[in-house]
Amino acid sequence: MAPHAAANDVAQKPAVVEGTLTVANVAANRTRFPLPKGVAAFSDSSMFKSAASAAKPKAKRWDHYISAESKLRKPSTLKQIAQYLQPGMLSLGGGLPSQEYFPFHEISAKAPSPSQFADPAPANPECSVISTKHDIIDATSEFDLEVALNYGQSVGYAAFVRWVTEHVEIVHNPPYGDWDLTLAPGSTQGWDFVLRMLCKPGDIVLTEEYTFCSAMEGAAAQGVIPFPVKVDAEGLLASSLDEILTNWDPAAHGGARKPFVLYTVPSGQNPTGATQSAERRKEIYKVAQKHDLIICEDEPYYFLQMEPYKGLGTPMTPPPASTDEFLKTLVPSFLSMDTDGRVIRLDSFSKVLSPGSRVSFVVASAQLTERMIRQAETSTQSPSGMAQILLYKLLDEAWGHEGYIKWLIHIRVEYTKRRNCIMDACEEFLPKSVATFNPPTAGMFNWIQIDWKKHPAIKEGKDHDAIEEMIFLAAVDAGVLVSRGTWFLADQSAKQEDMFFRTTFAAAPADQIREAIKRFGSVLNAQFNIQ
Amino acid sequence: MAPHAAANDVAQKPAVVEGTLTVANVAANRTRFPLPKGVAAFSDSSMFKSAASAAKPKAKRWDHYISAESKLRKPSTLKQIAQYLQPGMLSLGGGLPSQEYFPFHEISAKAPSPSQFADPAPANPECSVISTKHDIIDATSEFDLEVALNYGQSVGYAAFVRWVTEHVEIVHNPPYGDWDLTLAPGSTQGWDFVLRMLCKPGDIVLTEEYTFCSAMEGAAAQGVIPFPVKVDAEGLLASSLDEILTNWDPAAHGGARKPFVLYTVPSGQNPTGATQSAERRKEIYKVAQKHDLIICEDEPYYFLQMEPYKGLGTPMTPPPASTDEFLKTLVPSFLSMDTDGRVIRLDSFSKVLSPGSRVSFVVASAQLTERMIRQAETSTQSPSGMAQILLYKLLDEAWGHEGYIKWLIHIRVEYTKRRNCIMDACEEFLPKSVATFNPPTAGMFNWIQIDWKKHPAIKEGKDHDAIEEMIFLAAVDAGVLVSRGTWFLADQSAKQEDMFFRTTFAAAPADQIREAIKRFGSVLNAQFNIQ
Repeated sequence: MAPHAAANDVAQKPAVVEGTLTVANVAANRTRFPLPKGVAAFSDSSMFKSAASAAKPKAKRWDHYISAESKLRKPSTLKQIAQYLQPGMLSLGGGLPSQEYFPFHEISAKAPSPSQFADPAPANPECSVISTKHDIIDATSEFDLEVALNYGQSVGYAAFVRWVTEHVEIVHNPPYGDWDLTLAPGSTQGWDFVLRMLCKPGDIVLTEEYTFCSAMEGAAAQGVIPFPVKVDAEGLLASSLDEILTNWDPAAHGGARKPFVLYTVPSGQNPTGATQSAERRKEIYKVAQKHDLIICEDEPYYFLQMEPYKGLGTPMTPPPASTDEFLKTLVPSFLSMDTDGRVIRLDSFSKVLSPGSRVSFVVASAQLTERMIRQAETSTQSPSGMAQILLYKLLDEAWGHEGYIKWLIHIRVEYTKRRNCIMDACEEFLPKSVATFNPPTAGMFNWIQIDWKKHPAIKEGKDHDAIEEMIFLAAVDAGVLVSRGTWFLADQSAKQEDMFFRTTFAAAPADQIREAIKRFGSVLNAQFNIQ
Repeated sequence: MAPHAAANDVAQKPAVVEGTLTVANVAANRTRFPLPKGVAAFSDSSMFKSAASAAKPKAKRWDHYISAESKLRKPSTLKQIAQYLQPGMLSLGGGLPSQEYFPFHEISAKAPSPSQFADPAPANPECSVISTKHDIIDATSEFDLEVALNYGQSVGYAAFVRWVTEHVEIVHNPPYGDWDLTLAPGSTQGWDFVLRMLCKPGDIVLTEEYTFCSAMEGAAAQGVIPFPVKVDAEGLLASSLDEILTNWDPAAHGGARKPFVLYTVPSGQNPTGATQSAERRKEIYKVAQKHDLIICEDEPYYFLQMEPYKGLGTPMTPPPASTDEFLKTLVPSFLSMDTDGRVIRLDSFSKVLSPGSRVSFVVASAQLTERMIRQAETSTQSPSGMAQILLYKLLDEAWGHEGYIKWLIHIRVEYTKRRNCIMDACEEFLPKSVATFNPPTAGMFNWIQIDWKKHPAIKEGKDHDAIEEMIFLAAVDAGVLVSRGTWFLADQSAKQEDMFFRTTFAAAPADQIREAIKRFGSVLNAQFNIQ
């Protein structure tokens, strides 16, 4: 169950790895640096990336954007003890409890192997992983419960930081050298790190005009105001972004300084479902360079990219034949084109493994990552070690990078089926005269536009919000719950010309999706007096 | 493995529970309210506490202390969807992934049963807990992986919130009715919730003159300044607290308003090891009432209270004969005397089960708890579901409340042994002429005072800090790591009359503790030219 363990044998001569990391050379790269293995051992990405990646030019510095709060953060006093921990040292210094007092002697899990991925409930899942307190001493694993159940570094436990670093390089291969990462307890917390590090009350962050409302609620409580950038079917418009920034007049915005943080969900955007093309991302990155923006790319749906929907009943395109081919089909991330180190990528296991793990990771330049780790040290500390070791056992020891990418291909196929199911139902049941929709090519959301000006209540003087509410409540009465578009407005005070409802195809099985859209179609027919 | 499941059978008639919760009546109390069981089901403590507890008078209101940031926090827009989720409703509203896409089909753990607690590595741990995705549907558990691996409410997953509520009532029985709690990903994050909810930059928090430096580093980054309250062998002095507040002059403190938050570690204080007596706590609570303080009691070491140390080689007092007797031996918490609802209790599993779980809980009035939950919704969301279900399976299904309290008795005995070991070593090896120490009666720290004015370097004009550093580095050279007292100063600029070193007896086994103190004794002898 530990295919990479041999590669870490200290007696082994370091292998020469040419170029950056791939699924094929990742084991060899592990021979470059021994894995730090003790309780609360320090690690960072520079120990685990390839030499070729580390050798790239360094990121720009962002001192001019670091907030007063973040600047005040100093390394933990007690963590300085670690520098004195040499072999032979007896420590009465740190207040770490002893493993004898952790009652969990063993934690284990069962999961399918790649050949079982298509079976939602295999009777005998072939990947059975077991962790005990003494696996490191027994040389059966590089990570064990003695380490995972104790305090850890905020960056994460070393063995799992290694795996995540490798994953990031394999998938994104950032074009600068000192990229770094920290684990975080979910991307919502990752966004909190970004806000506290960069913003102060009264600041403005730019985002899609319809945006992920939970992220903006977090900003709002810190006095940070979202400002909408126009979108089209490919998501955020670079031209709108440029125009806003070029013409920024603080006086017109309550004295707010020119925005320098862009929050965007580039793939399968929540709520519109839009995915920025590679070309669109390049345009946006260019505008970011022109105006010196930090791009915060929140990418939970990155691996849920799909082949385009080809119409009612059209069979699915076969999945990619290999993991390499799959990775090539993905629209490049902002991180993968980030020559300046101006991208902060919020990445997550929530949509592809389990939201309940509360394990995510933030990739950014070493300077920014260090500031976020300082915040974690006095707040979240680190994601749960129980979750980290379960993910490590599955992703590193059982599946390896190749197995994980196969899982991602599987998940993508499953979401494509559901996407096709909801689109088929929309084609079949929604009245075309008032409802339009763009088949999403990523994520879990379908954004339905309603031609509300055709609604009969217009004649009674009802406005946009009143009609949106009427349709929403009529749907509830008919037994289907959808989300109102106005919930997602970046600028809640903006007068709305257009009306939308968000539907998700993630949560319900196919038959329920079909029935739910059928009900919603009936509601629209009734609301708009369509025979 | 589910002894309480029967008590939750909905067909069963609610049992009548007289009085507040005890280990004996907790199962009967569960019949009062069905446990909410779905994905992301809402719950709070009011569903799980006894009727007698809920009927007590309500807490005071704290509107005058809520910070601007906290006041800005609104309930999550997307969480309002939940109110429409009635039976028969098909939801395309929320963006929750579907359990088929969580690859973990089973998570399990092994732990000792109470009869095995004394064995640090039982060959066959008798508590073997297993969780799968369908335990709720199969009626084999009230909490399963379908729920734990998905998003949850910030307060925590209902089944575990119930257990924690019961535990709090059994142990502390708060004397007001609308006490509430939320799980948090560690007490460090709990303290962040408290700071963001109550304080603004420039505010001052009161704390012991030597205090837990990580907590104060978190405050400092938010511009919140610790102010020292004098301590004696029983910890924080109520008279010093009263004096500071009675004479508070904003002009003498850079314009800071009169402090209203006290941060204290009442049992086994970090770093001094002091434990406030019941009488001392009552005095402090009275001062808090007089000056309208919020008391934040950070109590990770509460259950590590011990019998007094009785001298070199004196045998241990036998452990309490029953769980009831054990609970009676504990010094009452501030929460247990909190008639006003002015205490925020940070409680944690870190020192008694595992720091790596990153699961803690914060107990406070319903008003304050609600504000903290709002912050969690846009930051940490909730502690890891993987950790929550592992703790639930062990604490509720395998051990129950009685088994957990037996574990606490066991842990307390183990820490007492280590405390006795370090005290014996101090008695044997430290030079009495320069080193003094008060045997701690809780926690994991031993605080050694050094009569530094006897140090020969005084004659060379060396000051307090220089001599502290000399001793610290000499100890490092001799292979023993201790913590410098000045690291823990609430007021880092205060001129020090006294010198201390903190030693922990938590991390090392007995033979190493003894050897380490022997080395430290030799260092002191050499430093002070003691023959």
